[in-house]
Amino acid sequence: MENLRYNNNRLYIIDQTLLPNEEKWVEIKSKEQAYDAIKRLMVRGAPAIGVFAGYSMALFSRDNNIYDLKEYLDSSRPTAVNLSWATQRIVNAYEQGKSLIEEAAAIQAEDDEMCRKISEYGLSLLKDGDGIITHCNAGELAAGRYGTGLGPLILGKEKGYNFRVFTDETRPLLQGARLTSYELEKAGIDVTLMCDNMAGLVMKKGLVNAVLVGCDRVAANGDTANKIGTSSLAVLAKYYNVPFYVLGPYSTVDFNCKNGNEIVIEERDGEEIKEMYFEKPTALKETKCFNPAFDVTDSSLITAIITDKGIVYPPYEVNLKEMLK
Amino acid sequence: MENLRYNNNRLYIIDQTLLPNEEKWVEIKSKEQAYDAIKRLMVRGAPAIGVFAGYSMALFSRDNNIYDLKEYLDSSRPTAVNLSWATQRIVNAYEQGKSLIEEAAAIQAEDDEMCRKISEYGLSLLKDGDGIITHCNAGELAAGRYGTGLGPLILGKEKGYNFRVFTDETRPLLQGARLTSYELEKAGIDVTLMCDNMAGLVMKKGLVNAVLVGCDRVAANGDTANKIGTSSLAVLAKYYNVPFYVLGPYSTVDFNCKNGNEIVIEERDGEEIKEMYFEKPTALKETKCFNPAFDVTDSSLITAIITDKGIVYPPYEVNLKEMLK
Repeated sequence: MENLRYNNNRLYIIDQTLLPNEEKWVEIKSKEQAYDAIKRLMVRGAPAIGVFAGYSMALFSRDNNIYDLKEYLDSSRPTAVNLSWATQRIVNAYEQGKSLIEEAAAIQAEDDEMCRKISEYGLSLLKDGDGIITHCNAGELAAGRYGTGLGPLILGKEKGYNFRVFTDETRPLLQGARLTSYELEKAGIDVTLMCDNMAGLVMKKGLVNAVLVGCDRVAANGDTANKIGTSSLAVLAKYYNVPFYVLGPYSTVDFNCKNGNEIVIEERDGEEIKEMYFEKPTALKETKCFNPAFDVTDSSLITAIITDKGIVYPPYEVNLKEMLK
Repeated sequence: MENLRYNNNRLYIIDQTLLPNEEKWVEIKSKEQAYDAIKRLMVRGAPAIGVFAGYSMALFSRDNNIYDLKEYLDSSRPTAVNLSWATQRIVNAYEQGKSLIEEAAAIQAEDDEMCRKISEYGLSLLKDGDGIITHCNAGELAAGRYGTGLGPLILGKEKGYNFRVFTDETRPLLQGARLTSYELEKAGIDVTLMCDNMAGLVMKKGLVNAVLVGCDRVAANGDTANKIGTSSLAVLAKYYNVPFYVLGPYSTVDFNCKNGNEIVIEERDGEEIKEMYFEKPTALKETKCFNPAFDVTDSSLITAIITDKGIVYPPYEVNLKEMLK
């Protein structure tokens, strides 16, 4: 399940906004198209955005001032740290007189390697036949080969493991339904789609051996920001004695962020809850909505944090730093 | 917010399948229409179905054999205990030579009185300014005046209380969005709609003083079956130290049911998750779904059960029976 193809100066992405109903590859021929693809979430997931931005910089700096181009692409999704990190890498390569396409390919190769390591560490915690719950989408559509949160499942499938995966649909943007169930189905993994409010019952029935989720930002003490609903899933996992694993690149750990209280949660438009994807609005126009995009899972609810540098157990404050060495 | 009007031999219901986009009153002129209205959930909620069935029996037994009519209407929703209970009451009145319309009106009056008592007991546990989370719909659309789960909020509003209510949208059938947010908005209550997976964050932020939910069946030990998602909400409430209240008529307590393990949970079609209400399917046709309609909340998670006979605290096994006297 690739999200991007680069071939002989031509860059293509799968339009993720059309999944699962249409599998459409789009060629990106201009900086405007690249900007639009990030802004409209045709390409999404921090690692995937970074790789895409790398190739876009390499290709479109041929006809554009590279510094202007970086600024322009960075503005397509200002909160995506990985985006400006990747565009800066191409600028650095340019200043050092390196091949920009080779630098973009290096970003992609590193991303694949990072995902492979996370997947291997994650898989070491699972056993054949395990029941798994996942939330949102941290798979190959969002990152490199194998993905992060879904990586152990896809790698495991290759190695002959049979998992029974339950994916939350992940309201309001339905990434679990539209992307995760699609991706796992295509990978031939036994996947069952459910609503977010059904995860507790699945745990209570004893069908779950582990919860696997990705992460957007991990504080120095292990508190983890991820898609809204993640922290509730962690509370349920604690109550039902199910291990709760967070998976992501080591670069997601932000040592400048002491704990979860310092993480500001983006609130999005209520239209996403009441109107988006629906045939008709589900509530009155005047009805207020609360639509936080993320929540912070307290580190006390997390069994282990799995990065490309290894598996980190509590106390996170000590052990996350330890791993740096 | 009425769900039914009876006037001079004419019976009308609001078509709840069209809410909140259309407020359409439909006259029910035949037993076939009555059957269809229950089956298609134009009228829903155990108490509301009972009242509607009572009036339907009284009206349409004029042109139909009353025993055949009872059997016919009962088959419209076989699991609704309240339905056959109400039709039987009209049959009993017929056999005793009583006025059937008066008997139907008596069912309705008793229902209103039951709701009023639940609302008063419930309100005694709340204070002005409280933040409340509710799930699904247990309001006036589902029952008599005030409703059950929402009763304390609507009665409180009348008495000048200002609550800040958060309602889960309640996937997959969206009763919280379509009905509860609509009903509370119309009652002039401060209501905020959110996705089911956001309740934990609202509790974590300290915005919630109580959770109020209805119930479909309460076992002798207090284990409570209610709309899917209720038990997860109860686990979160426990974790965040928020009181969790179950509200419903005393007749919902089933003393023949020892505990929650004896309650069979209805599983419904996956189409409700993947297709219903959406413009396009949210997942592939071949993707399996798990779609339980209810879950059982363990009595250890319930702060109190509020019925028309009073407020019951643990130990429920003893105190529910005690209240019978």
